[in-house]
Amino acid sequence: MATAQSWVTKDNTLYNKFEFKNFSEAFAFMTRVALEAEKMDHHPLWTNVYNRVEIWLNTHSEGDIVTDKDRALAKKIDALL
Amino acid sequence: MATAQSWVTKDNTLYNKFEFKNFSEAFAFMTRVALEAEKMDHHPLWTNVYNRVEIWLNTHSEGDIVTDKDRALAKKIDALL
Amino acid sequence: MATAQSWVTKDNTLYNKFEFKNFSEAFAFMTRVALEAEKMDHHPLWTNVYNRVEIWLNTHSEGDIVTDKDRALAKKIDALL
Amino acid sequence: MATAQSWVTKDNTLYNKFEFKNFSEAFAFMTRVALEAEKMDHHPLWTNVYNRVEIWLNTHSEGDIVTDKDRALAKKIDALL
Repeated sequence: MATAQSWVTKDNTLYNKFEFKNFSEAFAFMTRVALEAEKMDHHPLWTNVYNRVEIWLNTHSEGDIVTDKDRALAKKIDALL
Repeated sequence: MATAQSWVTKDNTLYNKFEFKNFSEAFAFMTRVALEAEKMDHHPLWTNVYNRVEIWLNTHSEGDIVTDKDRALAKKIDALL
Repeated sequence: MATAQSWVTKDNTLYNKFEFKNFSEAFAFMTRVALEAEKMDHHPLWTNVYNRVEIWLNTHSEGDIVTDKDRALAKKIDALL
Repeated sequence: MATAQSWVTKDNTLYNKFEFKNFSEAFAFMTRVALEAEKMDHHPLWTNVYNRVEIWLNTHSEGDIVTDKDRALAKKIDALL
């Protein structure tokens, strides 16, 4: 379904990049991430174009650094794939 | 991912029933069906509760009977699974 | 945007019916209800066809009766309109 | 609902920026844009964080310049607000 690398630390964010078959598959993934993010009240910065999704996670309320909340959301996103 | 049977004809509709792991997976599927339906301008009657989705297809403008439009949408839905 | 009546009690559920301008508006509403439902871990039985959405709320774990959880979700759905 | 400026031309793209009340409203908007984009088979580059959505439109197959397809999608996005 999707190809993904591991999450990397980049400019004080946890970063990952996902590639899907097409837009429909990418947007369905985004919908599932949205459900997780809203449940945790912890929302990603993300970019999509066609079949590609990039996600940057950090915690604004802690001064835009990577915290356990980000690691928890990253884990939940991995579980969707 | 999903368990599905084949489409059956039932009360002048094409009917199918899908079962997913959880709500998130079911709603992601619904989002993909929504994209297909909107693209064809042909919208299903569907019901969801938690991980289950039921879909009934027929063509309102032809007098609520099953037409090629319904068979085409059914095929596109099958391709999502 | 949407026309809605008040929630009514019907066969041991809280029931409501919403009408939107088109499918796109109806499905956007469903996406917002999905976010709320997943956050509460309390999922509706709902039906959609084109611009119409019907929702039945009850609490399965309490024996399929209307509980405070249903009244809370109904209130959150009303706040989306 | 949303605050938006007008579309501006920026680095060979049509660019706009939208602000909503919260994530739920922003993601519902994105779902509606997704339906339009898929219908036109013309997909945006977009970024979201919480209640903000940024969109850049250009036409890859024409050498990443702004074309009538982009102006048409921009108009459809405006009609959602």
